[in-house]
Amino acid sequence: MLYLVGLGLGDAKDITVKGLEAVRQCRRVYLEAYTSVLTVGKEALEEFYGRELILADRETVEQEADSILKEADVCDVAFLVVGDPFGATTHSDLVLRAVKLGIPYKVIHNASIMNAVGCCGLQLYNFGETVSIVFWTDTWKPESFFDKIEKNRQNGMHTLCLLDIKVKEQSLENLMKGRKIYEPPRYMSVNQAAEQLLAIIQNRRLQGEEPEITENTVCVGLARVGAPDQKIASGTLYQMSTVELGGPLHSLIVTGTMHPLELEMLKLFSVDSSSCEDNAFQKIT
Amino acid sequence: MLYLVGLGLGDAKDITVKGLEAVRQCRRVYLEAYTSVLTVGKEALEEFYGRELILADRETVEQEADSILKEADVCDVAFLVVGDPFGATTHSDLVLRAVKLGIPYKVIHNASIMNAVGCCGLQLYNFGETVSIVFWTDTWKPESFFDKIEKNRQNGMHTLCLLDIKVKEQSLENLMKGRKIYEPPRYMSVNQAAEQLLAIIQNRRLQGEEPEITENTVCVGLARVGAPDQKIASGTLYQMSTVELGGPLHSLIVTGTMHPLELEMLKLFSVDSSSCEDNAFQKIT
Repeated sequence: MLYLVGLGLGDAKDITVKGLEAVRQCRRVYLEAYTSVLTVGKEALEEFYGRELILADRETVEQEADSILKEADVCDVAFLVVGDPFGATTHSDLVLRAVKLGIPYKVIHNASIMNAVGCCGLQLYNFGETVSIVFWTDTWKPESFFDKIEKNRQNGMHTLCLLDIKVKEQSLENLMKGRKIYEPPRYMSVNQAAEQLLAIIQNRRLQGEEPEITENTVCVGLARVGAPDQKIASGTLYQMSTVELGGPLHSLIVTGTMHPLELEMLKLFSVDSSSCEDNAFQKIT
Repeated sequence: MLYLVGLGLGDAKDITVKGLEAVRQCRRVYLEAYTSVLTVGKEALEEFYGRELILADRETVEQEADSILKEADVCDVAFLVVGDPFGATTHSDLVLRAVKLGIPYKVIHNASIMNAVGCCGLQLYNFGETVSIVFWTDTWKPESFFDKIEKNRQNGMHTLCLLDIKVKEQSLENLMKGRKIYEPPRYMSVNQAAEQLLAIIQNRRLQGEEPEITENTVCVGLARVGAPDQKIASGTLYQMSTVELGGPLHSLIVTGTMHPLELEMLKLFSVDSSSCEDNAFQKIT
């Protein structure tokens, strides 16, 4: 049996009781380590689960899936994923491969950022399409996510923006020389995401457009959702470019039309209650 | 401290380790029993959690919230919610009331239907706005959810349809006579939801419209997601009106534009592989 087990978002104890039982009975336990991370680290998980974890990076999962599935028809193998196994990134490939090999599988669900963002008070059924904001480089500055956020907002919907993470990436030079030297991990902050959005707004204005989203649009920055030191801050997009939320992982929400109850919840988290009252929350909503 | 604890979707063991620890240390433990249910029943939960549960129906939560929060500033109280506390239905009201009373609160997240539907292979970030399909009566047949599904589909997005549940409802007669006699609980099935959608399509055609969604649109019916006897069936909307999925809770997805990998996953669950190949999956996608 292949168990796909969601670990939730905070720390080792966010695994479900069912998930923990599965992990403890499996012969091999893989930890998917490239689409998200639990900031507590692998060792803390190993200690709590009582099992050694095999790190599975993108290469392993995409190119050596058969090694993960080896003998899973006669023994139990667990594949652990931060959040939910079918959350922000699906592991359909691994499931399809297991099915083709005649290996049964079970999914043990957990919270993912896709539903846990509800803790800021915005209602999940008022969210439109989720977008990913990628790190810009000197030569690659895509803006397509902005158009999706605009479209959601025009429809009155909120947008959850998942922020880029770069784990075990090679520099272009090392990649071309075939050297398996990896850059330190990078996690996009709410500040960086807001700056990229503000830059796009400026670009659009230079082109004579009037984007629906402005520096005064109400946004919510979330950091380490589900962890004891979780932080939520609501304010204008401009305020998001300087708000201090601490370490990764971060997510950003650009609001659409807000229900009074949603607004009241967001005020609990406002960066600066006076400015929120005066600016964003009154003018924009 | 007020703990809002998500119970997940399947059975007693879907609570997280952190959630279980919180429940066991609380003086009073409420089980929210009107927006969703764990079909295993209250007694199974009480046995596993080792705590007596106080059922909190809509009346209690909406009109007697203060009794739930009583002394929560000096002792720990848990409020248990099937799925995630901020999933399909938020409990912002309770949180806001706690904050006003100076009572600190903690959220312990879990899977909700809003993210667990990813197990069918459709990617969560390809979903548009979530809709609720309500039970029609002889005199009240709203169609507004249909327009939202149409809009999502026109944008290429899938739609998660949450299906109505009626728990502890009074008949109109008993309500008017002030008799607290409640009807047996009702849970909308995928069959019923599909029939209502098909009826709307017919209505629209009679009005000369050509709805984007037809009897051949690929849909996914899901029952008891996360439970050991979970069932997933993919097929046409017409097939959803007769597919046999067993007991509650059910959800329905109307697909938008599908990625090949999404399609391949859906085929694992097809009602009738030949018809899916020939009809829905080839013609419509």
